[in-house]
Amino acid sequence: MEKMVYNFSAGPAMLPVEVMKQAQAEFRDFHGLGVSVMELSHRGADYMAVAAEAEQDLRDLMQIPDNYKVLFLQGGGRGQFAAVPLNLMGINAKADYIVTGQWSKSAVAEAEKVGDVRVLEGLKTAEDGRQGLATSWALDSTAAYVHYCPNETIEGIEYNFIPDTGDVPLVADMSSTILSRPIDVTRFGIIYAGAQKNIGPSGLAVVIVREDLLSQACPQVPGILDYAAMAKADSMLNTPPTYAWYLAGLVFKWLKAQGGLEAMGERNKAKAELLYNYVDASDFYRNEVHPSARSWMNIPFQLKDDSLNDAFLKGAKAEGLLALKGHRIVGGMRASLYNAMPIEGVQALVAYMDKFAKQHGS
Amino acid sequence: MEKMVYNFSAGPAMLPVEVMKQAQAEFRDFHGLGVSVMELSHRGADYMAVAAEAEQDLRDLMQIPDNYKVLFLQGGGRGQFAAVPLNLMGINAKADYIVTGQWSKSAVAEAEKVGDVRVLEGLKTAEDGRQGLATSWALDSTAAYVHYCPNETIEGIEYNFIPDTGDVPLVADMSSTILSRPIDVTRFGIIYAGAQKNIGPSGLAVVIVREDLLSQACPQVPGILDYAAMAKADSMLNTPPTYAWYLAGLVFKWLKAQGGLEAMGERNKAKAELLYNYVDASDFYRNEVHPSARSWMNIPFQLKDDSLNDAFLKGAKAEGLLALKGHRIVGGMRASLYNAMPIEGVQALVAYMDKFAKQHGS
Repeated sequence: MEKMVYNFSAGPAMLPVEVMKQAQAEFRDFHGLGVSVMELSHRGADYMAVAAEAEQDLRDLMQIPDNYKVLFLQGGGRGQFAAVPLNLMGINAKADYIVTGQWSKSAVAEAEKVGDVRVLEGLKTAEDGRQGLATSWALDSTAAYVHYCPNETIEGIEYNFIPDTGDVPLVADMSSTILSRPIDVTRFGIIYAGAQKNIGPSGLAVVIVREDLLSQACPQVPGILDYAAMAKADSMLNTPPTYAWYLAGLVFKWLKAQGGLEAMGERNKAKAELLYNYVDASDFYRNEVHPSARSWMNIPFQLKDDSLNDAFLKGAKAEGLLALKGHRIVGGMRASLYNAMPIEGVQALVAYMDKFAKQHGS
Repeated sequence: MEKMVYNFSAGPAMLPVEVMKQAQAEFRDFHGLGVSVMELSHRGADYMAVAAEAEQDLRDLMQIPDNYKVLFLQGGGRGQFAAVPLNLMGINAKADYIVTGQWSKSAVAEAEKVGDVRVLEGLKTAEDGRQGLATSWALDSTAAYVHYCPNETIEGIEYNFIPDTGDVPLVADMSSTILSRPIDVTRFGIIYAGAQKNIGPSGLAVVIVREDLLSQACPQVPGILDYAAMAKADSMLNTPPTYAWYLAGLVFKWLKAQGGLEAMGERNKAKAELLYNYVDASDFYRNEVHPSARSWMNIPFQLKDDSLNDAFLKGAKAEGLLALKGHRIVGGMRASLYNAMPIEGVQALVAYMDKFAKQHGS
């Protein structure tokens, strides 16, 4: 019997076991062709079918309207930090950026290379002193777009609402929340995501862009980040990351088989509640984010005594609970509960946390 | 017994059979960790060791001096078409580009977005009327750099010498020739290559850059293309394409086990000569490149009657000889004979070509 391992890495993250088994089985012989899918020309019919099917499955899952293009690009989320201003600031070089954590802050740094960026505060202190979210901003109605990050992977802060930006296109870095539940794509001008959390392996970014936003690029936009050129070339202006795209396609099929995003949303809510409820009831662990702003995907938690952190991690690893160390900015622990993490993984984590607390508790 | 298949794709191309077997075997359990290498955090010790070992093996293979940085980036060769001018034109925004075929031409288009590009003719007509290479140019001694493409994948034209550019840094797009034989790295300011030909799967670019060239970037260079920032972060300014990097590392180890680049050079020469000699002796097939400019890696050839092309390809596929269709610009056939292609593949191709010629010949 296989040793059970649960990988809580924030990204690159675990992929669904069924997907990994299929990928391994056909690794060297894809559909009887005698070669790996990664050895196929991206211009050949066999690979083109893989690519098109992945796109269609994503369109089905997210109910992406026909007036949106779906791009499969290289460069991850940080590539898109540059691509968004380079594609949207060609006519009007100013934008509003709502900053809620490290990732939205990093997006600002890239946008400032291209145009004028106004930073708006995404955080506010909730009534009980914990971190909460601002719900309205003095937005610039003449900005080219408003950018925000619906889920901050490091801080574990997530929007449970979509900001209202009026007629100004809303751009969202959904790297760590895409596909975790249904979302109304029509509320967005651009949705983008690095793949290595909820989509597939690292080295791929998915971009969903409304067609009317494809004609305002800066002339200096590099080809690999040029949405209009990539849309025209079906994301094959250059050789795409074919294997990552293929694996993303397997993940999309797996999500359909699980019942789609409604079903995933219910599961992800249940997984997150299991952990938050345990933490809130505990006097050994704590989470410092206000409940209204808590992430379903990335859950940081602190032990009551930081000097126990190493022992906690060592014991967790021995039980097959991996990659729980928190980001250095936040410290403590972090459990990432992306789609591929089964509820059994969260149950095993809570059981271990409880055992550890009793061993070292007050 | 496994069906023998030889994949002549120009890229994504075949990978060494031994590499693919190892990758498949450890696909879901890397070094007993219970997870795939693609599910490891790039910041963790397990993956960092993979990354560092790949770099060291490449340094050993190519004898890369200590004053060169080695970067593992996203965006492929076309990403580097943009990265080179963005990293080198910040102080002096002009460069010379030697154009020998489609790829060096595409590099010009990206560089023109950044600065002044002077195009120099890389081709000349040889004495016998076939395509040969220019051997000297009126170079601008005040240019920021000279760019060329030592092997043009589409046309099958390859430099058998390194252009002398004096004190001006020489930048080479080696996508389809890197690792095919020993090369004197010290002759270059920058060597770059998309991985999907002689290094690994698509979605990765390797850049070898002399340290003194890291301080002349344009301020607007996107982070994912910023050599200095990437060098400082060991290519992990953002999440790198971890699985492609790992596979590249396996290929580097395989190359070492084959005897390194001296041994590969001898093999690649022998493979290419086998096919060229057959074509030259045939009155059914022809190659239109002058012998002094012929590529070892990509060998286009024409049938004497284009109307036989489809029958040729169909028969080849039936014998397990795949992806021989030539690029649409050149037409006819193209056999790419990268490192992973064994001589047995070329022997099988020549045997099939001979049989086909006899069936359809004059």
